[in-house]
Amino acid sequence: MQTLLQHQIDQKTKPLGALGRLEDLALQIGLIQQTTQPQLRQPHLVVFAADHGAALHGVSAYPQEVTWQMVMNFLAGGAAINVFCRQHQINLKVADAGVNFDFDSHPQLINAKIAKGTQPFHLQTAMTENQAQQAMDKGAAIVRQIAQTGCNIIGFGEMGIGNTSAASLLMAFFTDLPLNVCIGTGTGVDEKGLQRKHQVLNQAYELHKHLKVSTKGEQTNGQAKEQNPLAILAAVGGFEIAMLTGAMLQAAKLHMVVLVDGFIASASFLVATIFQPTIRQYAIACHVSAEQGHQKLLEYLGLKPLLQLDMRLGEGTGVAVAYPLLESAVRFLNEMASFESAGVSVSK
Amino acid sequence: MQTLLQHQIDQKTKPLGALGRLEDLALQIGLIQQTTQPQLRQPHLVVFAADHGAALHGVSAYPQEVTWQMVMNFLAGGAAINVFCRQHQINLKVADAGVNFDFDSHPQLINAKIAKGTQPFHLQTAMTENQAQQAMDKGAAIVRQIAQTGCNIIGFGEMGIGNTSAASLLMAFFTDLPLNVCIGTGTGVDEKGLQRKHQVLNQAYELHKHLKVSTKGEQTNGQAKEQNPLAILAAVGGFEIAMLTGAMLQAAKLHMVVLVDGFIASASFLVATIFQPTIRQYAIACHVSAEQGHQKLLEYLGLKPLLQLDMRLGEGTGVAVAYPLLESAVRFLNEMASFESAGVSVSK
Repeated sequence: MQTLLQHQIDQKTKPLGALGRLEDLALQIGLIQQTTQPQLRQPHLVVFAADHGAALHGVSAYPQEVTWQMVMNFLAGGAAINVFCRQHQINLKVADAGVNFDFDSHPQLINAKIAKGTQPFHLQTAMTENQAQQAMDKGAAIVRQIAQTGCNIIGFGEMGIGNTSAASLLMAFFTDLPLNVCIGTGTGVDEKGLQRKHQVLNQAYELHKHLKVSTKGEQTNGQAKEQNPLAILAAVGGFEIAMLTGAMLQAAKLHMVVLVDGFIASASFLVATIFQPTIRQYAIACHVSAEQGHQKLLEYLGLKPLLQLDMRLGEGTGVAVAYPLLESAVRFLNEMASFESAGVSVSK
Repeated sequence: MQTLLQHQIDQKTKPLGALGRLEDLALQIGLIQQTTQPQLRQPHLVVFAADHGAALHGVSAYPQEVTWQMVMNFLAGGAAINVFCRQHQINLKVADAGVNFDFDSHPQLINAKIAKGTQPFHLQTAMTENQAQQAMDKGAAIVRQIAQTGCNIIGFGEMGIGNTSAASLLMAFFTDLPLNVCIGTGTGVDEKGLQRKHQVLNQAYELHKHLKVSTKGEQTNGQAKEQNPLAILAAVGGFEIAMLTGAMLQAAKLHMVVLVDGFIASASFLVATIFQPTIRQYAIACHVSAEQGHQKLLEYLGLKPLLQLDMRLGEGTGVAVAYPLLESAVRFLNEMASFESAGVSVSK
């Protein structure tokens, strides 16, 4: 299939490789769908929202209630992600993974609440392993439901005041990068707030570092220590992050194209690669954000982002604005003439 | 207006600056249209096509007839630019600025032929100054015609075997960058071809260098030498390039958003800035190509490209694939809720 696809790409009326990254995308999507005529069907974007105990301890520029207020804004159609999904006819769903608020039912809202926010991870584990597993399972179930619409391309976003902190910790636990490299200003914490964030995250790291296994293969008493990703996810993750991880794993299993958004979604994807390394071939990193650590995380994952627009909003906005590029990739493969069909001379 | 626009952007339900480059675009387009509710209307893309005498002297990987063959491909709807314009409902026109071929009439084809290709610029001037002026005037007339449809955003692409050579020479004449920095592999010339290209372009540069005036303000006999941009454009330019220059100048004059594509369109834009420096505020650089020199040229022009997708195809493809980002910018400004209207708490 790879040879067939590459041949088809090379026969189009353009110099070899002249469509750059769009050619890589066409090849990847063709391989995921195992066809030389890939199609993007019923694109969906799910924003997973949840609260974080740590948000009550000064790690964010915004108060915790912004999480539920923004969920209401998503449901009213007024947030950035609404605008971009409407623009590209992407079906938007909002999953309440664990927001500290009781929502009325709404056609776009999926009730998947595990609890009303996690516990502060610098004082105890954020959730139980059982809750982390529940969240992953619910994420998978949501994707299975969406797949029934015929959807074969799905993007993932998030909303949760304090969740860059959880993402930073997960990055520090699942890579060998030092914690301070993994911490950034999030939605725009000031100098003093950033100090406080560093302090809380260092405390969390110290509290849970016994769970960390060096990727270089640390040995204890002559025996290789086994990594327990679920325990780490439970200790320092978030409900929306665990749900994202489960959702991404399920989407890849169903051979969907998996669209990864900003720092938090990328951290969730990092956790997914620990559970299932082959998920990488299904993933497209849509945007590298201005958040420190995101670029390093994508490099670590071996993902090259499509866009670099200095956005740092989350919600899946990077996925939504990048979506037309995926369509362009599929369309040139299906619609462009070949040198032969167009009667154009090939290069000398 | 700038203050009004910035205030409106900052009141949207997102952290300050969190939409990154999209915020810059919204501000720029708002300023061009002098409104806090900008709209993109009747988007057009014009591909200017012409032949180059130098193409018969081994500067390109493709034979000259590919220019007219690709024009036929544009008119038949089979090229990359057709696919991307269809995707984004951009009205595509093809202007024959000087192709070495007689085309039948076609609703998408604008006959603006100056001559059947330029003369080889390493042996003589590529065209007369009169022809260069004619080409600029026809470019302007084409834009005036398009403006009558209500169009307020216009992109420019090009097709012309050999035209990266003309673009490299113009860059070397109108900046103080050395010629070899301005020369790249174009559509994919090989090592030997690249040597030949350097040789021909060095010869052209030597032949016409008396026209060059250092931007550092060279003095001759105590008097500042006056730059004659039309003479340089005539000596080393191309019909499509001169027409692009005239078209861009006219579009800015009509307060349209001017979308700049790849290396050749950027070189045309460089020439336009010599005629009218204020044109910069109307321009958006859509994509920086893989062509050596393009990034340096955009830096010189002070334009930050929106996309970097390793494309090197021309035709206006960079404009077309970037177009939805401009729409996203305008839409978030018009459609997103404010903190107040959505009842979302502001940052602490």
